[in-house]
Amino acid sequence: MPKQIGVIGSGALSKDEEAYRIAEQVGEEIARTKAILICGGLYGVMEACAKGAKKCKGITVGILPGESKEEANPYIDIKIVTAMSHARNAIIARSCDALIAVGGDYGTLSEIVLALKSGKKVAVIKTRDSLVSKVADSLPVYIAKNAKEAVEFCIKA
Amino acid sequence: MPKQIGVIGSGALSKDEEAYRIAEQVGEEIARTKAILICGGLYGVMEACAKGAKKCKGITVGILPGESKEEANPYIDIKIVTAMSHARNAIIARSCDALIAVGGDYGTLSEIVLALKSGKKVAVIKTRDSLVSKVADSLPVYIAKNAKEAVEFCIKA
Amino acid sequence: MPKQIGVIGSGALSKDEEAYRIAEQVGEEIARTKAILICGGLYGVMEACAKGAKKCKGITVGILPGESKEEANPYIDIKIVTAMSHARNAIIARSCDALIAVGGDYGTLSEIVLALKSGKKVAVIKTRDSLVSKVADSLPVYIAKNAKEAVEFCIKA
Amino acid sequence: MPKQIGVIGSGALSKDEEAYRIAEQVGEEIARTKAILICGGLYGVMEACAKGAKKCKGITVGILPGESKEEANPYIDIKIVTAMSHARNAIIARSCDALIAVGGDYGTLSEIVLALKSGKKVAVIKTRDSLVSKVADSLPVYIAKNAKEAVEFCIKA
Repeated sequence: MPKQIGVIGSGALSKDEEAYRIAEQVGEEIARTKAILICGGLYGVMEACAKGAKKCKGITVGILPGESKEEANPYIDIKIVTAMSHARNAIIARSCDALIAVGGDYGTLSEIVLALKSGKKVAVIKTRDSLVSKVADSLPVYIAKNAKEAVEFCIKA
Repeated sequence: MPKQIGVIGSGALSKDEEAYRIAEQVGEEIARTKAILICGGLYGVMEACAKGAKKCKGITVGILPGESKEEANPYIDIKIVTAMSHARNAIIARSCDALIAVGGDYGTLSEIVLALKSGKKVAVIKTRDSLVSKVADSLPVYIAKNAKEAVEFCIKA
Repeated sequence: MPKQIGVIGSGALSKDEEAYRIAEQVGEEIARTKAILICGGLYGVMEACAKGAKKCKGITVGILPGESKEEANPYIDIKIVTAMSHARNAIIARSCDALIAVGGDYGTLSEIVLALKSGKKVAVIKTRDSLVSKVADSLPVYIAKNAKEAVEFCIKA
Repeated sequence: MPKQIGVIGSGALSKDEEAYRIAEQVGEEIARTKAILICGGLYGVMEACAKGAKKCKGITVGILPGESKEEANPYIDIKIVTAMSHARNAIIARSCDALIAVGGDYGTLSEIVLALKSGKKVAVIKTRDSLVSKVADSLPVYIAKNAKEAVEFCIKA
């Protein structure tokens, strides 16, 4: 059975930002291990990781907050339309065997915490100026140096 | 983009029942058209359609009601863990381009109605002694004679 | 412990329609029995029943589909903001001891069926030209002649 | 219109713990201001705040995680049955005008963060040995010295 690995982080990033490039590498690594990528299906980190996974022929799942499949980014294979807004974060947390946060702010922090509460392992890759990077050391998460380390941690989890 | 087709019906069926065999054929037909099968991920019709789809190398998604991936039947590739009980029916209805009901009772009827409300097309394959078969003629659904007809209707929808 | 009684029906009604007047009477009867009224919090039948209940000093709860308290009609005391769209219907069905449908279309029918599936009793007051009125005789619901009969049925349930 | 104030914190507390006594005072203060108390409806902080509110004739609402009204503590007037497990936290966060956290761990932290994301004001009353107390200074929340200060902050919010 392939693992289901979640990737979370800010949805508001431009493509030349650090977090975007890291998330793309995370997606590539996940696809290389044949795990299934689960994300929020929208933009920023969600788009970057799905793009990376498709580059390596992985399967990508987007758990969407809105009411239509059309909001998914173009790299999502399977579109789950929740119409539940932020409450869909709980579904992402529960559906994954382990999660990787690439920086991120309130939404990402809430997802990390929900995942920890459900007994899931979480790896954090710190980025500059993100709330998650600031509070990560207070949480029982694995601080990964890069995409490869984060995915290896999740596969072993 | 492959279509996402939902299959719904009773979760409490033995493998020699009419609805089980029909649902298996529905799964086979969906996989042959390269569509993605979405179902509730548990037993009865949900198991039968996923089994049929895997026989024909399709991709199967289970939108699970409980709190763990473990409750999925063995033919589910992608396991979405909602922990939302029956309210997960709304996610199935919204995530599909079109739905096929193979008989079914209250849960199935509620899913059909949610799908119609979201503007989705629904095909019903009638089975003996099911609530859905009794009320289907009062609803704006397509009554399909068999699995093939139902899937063709959904692909065109 | 006061009972929690749900009232459901079309959200798109003008104030001079038959269903609006009946729903207002249902709200009045619920408040007279000191039960708590639970509804979807918006317009049409939801507004009418809450208006009736407040006329008789009852407590009204609105389980709202959107992201803000502001969408509630002016007769709602307690505003529950689900941001879950139609999936909030499952919460209405589960939170009530019994439900009363005043006519209604797809959404109402889905709510009736969810309630029956959760083991709740449902009374239907038929109105002209509504889907629920057409299919009610195929469902295990109580057909009430008027508001008083429907509320009495729910209190005994 | 009365405000809706949420109170969150650990569900696993004995009645002689610091957080229990503080939460009871928070409930009393909320009721004195005529605001409506919204909480998770179960035990620990949720029970304590509801108990305090009822002592002062307030109205208490419990947004329950499970499938039945029966799980509510005895001080809850209005029982909302979500059957959504932890995802019900998002509904608590959205339904409140402002929130008060009395200590708390992962669940509470996730709720604080969801509330901040929805633009709500949050007051934290620190207690010994709680995760929330440790990370509160990294979050844009108001650190209140006691129940009275926390409720005053929420009423002004």
